[in-house]
Amino acid sequence: MDLQVQFGKRVRELRLAKGLSQEALALKAEVDRTYMTSVENGKRNVAIQNIGKIIAALDISIQDFFNSEIFTIK
Amino acid sequence: MDLQVQFGKRVRELRLAKGLSQEALALKAEVDRTYMTSVENGKRNVAIQNIGKIIAALDISIQDFFNSEIFTIK
Repeated sequence: MDLQVQFGKRVRELRLAKGLSQEALALKAEVDRTYMTSVENGKRNVAIQNIGKIIAALDISIQDFFNSEIFTIK
Repeated sequence: MDLQVQFGKRVRELRLAKGLSQEALALKAEVDRTYMTSVENGKRNVAIQNIGKIIAALDISIQDFFNSEIFTIK
């Protein structure tokens, strides 16, 4: 499973854990809701600026965001 | 310092630690050398597919790559 899909899964996992809707997270991250849907579905080759905005909107550190077994590229 | 710049710094830090030239890392990651230079200089809004390729070329896990104090967005 490639990193694009893993990233989307991790965003969804954390969003649900925080009880946020896609709309609420998209608003906080200052991205469009449909963009957020495609990110979570692993359909978006997200660039690092938006990666940073989405992670910040989830109120989690970069280290903790990527410290998950979801990420198995190596 | 934003994530784009932090990512570039971490790539350079790990590349040097492994004794790789930019050219060698670019070859392994299957990206252009000038692209790699701009990534390391924080001038490139790298997309997640290339992030995955660069990290894999550094022979490090996603978790370990981002487990660095360089990343301070939170």
